[in-house]
Amino acid sequence: MSTNTYTVTGMTCGHCVASVTEELGEIGGVTDVAVDLPTGAVTVTSDRPVDDAKIRAAVEEAGYQLAG
Amino acid sequence: MSTNTYTVTGMTCGHCVASVTEELGEIGGVTDVAVDLPTGAVTVTSDRPVDDAKIRAAVEEAGYQLAG
Repeated sequence: MSTNTYTVTGMTCGHCVASVTEELGEIGGVTDVAVDLPTGAVTVTSDRPVDDAKIRAAVEEAGYQLAG
Repeated sequence: MSTNTYTVTGMTCGHCVASVTEELGEIGGVTDVAVDLPTGAVTVTSDRPVDDAKIRAAVEEAGYQLAG
């Protein structure tokens, strides 16, 4: 089990949260995605380590950016 | 042909625009919906007059509010 928290910028509403959650949820091994809209904190739980590049790609596919 | 412009508050992103556009487009007689996100101006074109109450209901169904 692996849990990592990222900061995503550009999310403004519940639809944004849904888009990011959906894209991250499609990554192999991801079992849970939790988004805190006000802060942009996105916590990804997976049953195996997930490469940061995959996280970044999914966030960008949804139309947002990883901070840092 | 009837064209009316309303101000919708609470839209923050393209998903919001899509939601409002979809709900307004389902009103009978509506042929076009144009949304300007920065100002919240929503222009509804219809082939017959549309009751303001229907516009308001559609905007609220999408999760937003008509100003005024």
